[in-house]
Amino acid sequence: MEKVNKIIKNSYIHSLENCRNGDQIEEIEAIQNVIKNSKKIVVATSNGKKFKVVKNIILKVLDNHCNDNNQNNVNIEMLDICTNSADLTRMPALTKGLIAVDITDADLIIARGRLGIAGSGSLLLLMDGKGRILTGAMSPSSIIHKESIEHKMEFELLQALKKIGIMVEL
Amino acid sequence: MEKVNKIIKNSYIHSLENCRNGDQIEEIEAIQNVIKNSKKIVVATSNGKKFKVVKNIILKVLDNHCNDNNQNNVNIEMLDICTNSADLTRMPALTKGLIAVDITDADLIIARGRLGIAGSGSLLLLMDGKGRILTGAMSPSSIIHKESIEHKMEFELLQALKKIGIMVEL
Amino acid sequence: MEKVNKIIKNSYIHSLENCRNGDQIEEIEAIQNVIKNSKKIVVATSNGKKFKVVKNIILKVLDNHCNDNNQNNVNIEMLDICTNSADLTRMPALTKGLIAVDITDADLIIARGRLGIAGSGSLLLLMDGKGRILTGAMSPSSIIHKESIEHKMEFELLQALKKIGIMVEL
Amino acid sequence: MEKVNKIIKNSYIHSLENCRNGDQIEEIEAIQNVIKNSKKIVVATSNGKKFKVVKNIILKVLDNHCNDNNQNNVNIEMLDICTNSADLTRMPALTKGLIAVDITDADLIIARGRLGIAGSGSLLLLMDGKGRILTGAMSPSSIIHKESIEHKMEFELLQALKKIGIMVEL
Repeated sequence: MEKVNKIIKNSYIHSLENCRNGDQIEEIEAIQNVIKNSKKIVVATSNGKKFKVVKNIILKVLDNHCNDNNQNNVNIEMLDICTNSADLTRMPALTKGLIAVDITDADLIIARGRLGIAGSGSLLLLMDGKGRILTGAMSPSSIIHKESIEHKMEFELLQALKKIGIMVEL
Repeated sequence: MEKVNKIIKNSYIHSLENCRNGDQIEEIEAIQNVIKNSKKIVVATSNGKKFKVVKNIILKVLDNHCNDNNQNNVNIEMLDICTNSADLTRMPALTKGLIAVDITDADLIIARGRLGIAGSGSLLLLMDGKGRILTGAMSPSSIIHKESIEHKMEFELLQALKKIGIMVEL
Repeated sequence: MEKVNKIIKNSYIHSLENCRNGDQIEEIEAIQNVIKNSKKIVVATSNGKKFKVVKNIILKVLDNHCNDNNQNNVNIEMLDICTNSADLTRMPALTKGLIAVDITDADLIIARGRLGIAGSGSLLLLMDGKGRILTGAMSPSSIIHKESIEHKMEFELLQALKKIGIMVEL
Repeated sequence: MEKVNKIIKNSYIHSLENCRNGDQIEEIEAIQNVIKNSKKIVVATSNGKKFKVVKNIILKVLDNHCNDNNQNNVNIEMLDICTNSADLTRMPALTKGLIAVDITDADLIIARGRLGIAGSGSLLLLMDGKGRILTGAMSPSSIIHKESIEHKMEFELLQALKKIGIMVEL
């Protein structure tokens, strides 16, 4: 957490001084570390199928990183309350993630929902325990892609991880 | 505008009644119509190069749709104020778009910026005049992709349009 | 709308140049004008009692301003969908207001709900058709004040209007 | 933190089941406890005068509660970066608070800034380390009240604390 605070603060200072020059390698590494070292992970869904897809991938990410780590230290849960209410907000995926931030003590949250208004397609977000967005991925509306939601979610999560340099083999 | 209000309201009612069943074809069509019929378009950037990329694509979208439309009716502008301040917010791309919503009378806004914290990659959003999100696309952090920003922006805009069924040939 | 866009843009430019020096009288006047000249007003509630309180006050504000205005031109409505879902968001009052922004063509929205987390008290907001916040007022949690919600809402709306220089006599 | 998560979750469940019946006394108490037990407090300003006003009051709140507490355990700081960029967002006070949330490890943040658009008056917010809003207070635009900012800030902070049942004598 401390490290991410510092990274964000530095990027703010650079922006204020008009000398920010694109993303830095330390920033990507800091994001990777938050994800790989998370101990309590919450998937902002109450859908068991979606949860299983995410759990499967996230465990591999943690595994790759910490060979001698006792996996029992890691806790992956889904939410036990319904998040449909988020669909009445401007950014349903974001709102779902913030529900998980606000009712759990997770240090990593994975949320998926609509990007914006009805028809705008879907957004998957990885957030830290304060609700800061670490990475994400998108899919077109289901009416365009016609694939199963589980398949899409797997694809999006792999893509979101790849975007910040974490490769997962299934 | 009226049509979109109704589409959103219907989706809200379906969510409240727990009978929403994925996106509807009318929803995609309503989004397409907002984009194709927009008369005042603002690109939330003060960078001439980025503006040109977006303008080039958006004019084709309007063209394809309205053959007998006098193109002079359409107005595409960039912002004449700096939007770097958005980088000190949780979702820079969204904040940039809202700056354009709040200081212009555009009915279509195209904004691009960081998705979340430093290192999280970029997000391109298409928003209507109220700031509602119509579609979007993402790229990895520039440190990962190593391509020019103009090239990335072109790719993202084409992808965002394709996601809602608008194909553009360059 | 045009006028407000310009007022906001000017304030942004002054902030960017570090020469903003507190609020200007034109800014207050622009806010007053949005409220007094609104033609379609939506109260973001489906509660008839709350609606009546707001309607009663708002009609007086419009009246005072436009003596020779045909009041029939003005349309005040409440929402016909439930907004309780907003209580699962970080700022319920704001979320309720945005529901009204997104599903109606109102040019003035009055929303009231919780300020933040449970126990944080209530917030009343006046927003324009794009969701921009014009003014507002707060009350403590009902557990602290023990007054009727209608009474509190009346007090808050009068206070919110007074804050921007609009006095209403009941 | 744990306690607040639970309180928020319960309020969400009650809202989902349509059986929420106003704020509960435990909710107010939980908010009081977050404030009184905070160890690292950040005032989201780089203005020394404003900081002093807030520090003075907050230390009394902590004092009252923990008689045998070593005050040295408590750390009150202001931000060492400029937060003016927040004025180019829809809710400057909220944005300032989130800057503090995102670049520090504070467990209590006090932020003050504009409520909404230029002219809309000011908002003071108390937030926890995740950015959740605990309480707040408002003042009219400075052009209406004509008092010093320090005086107003003192008044607002006392009011925000009083709203959740914390009385402070100066």
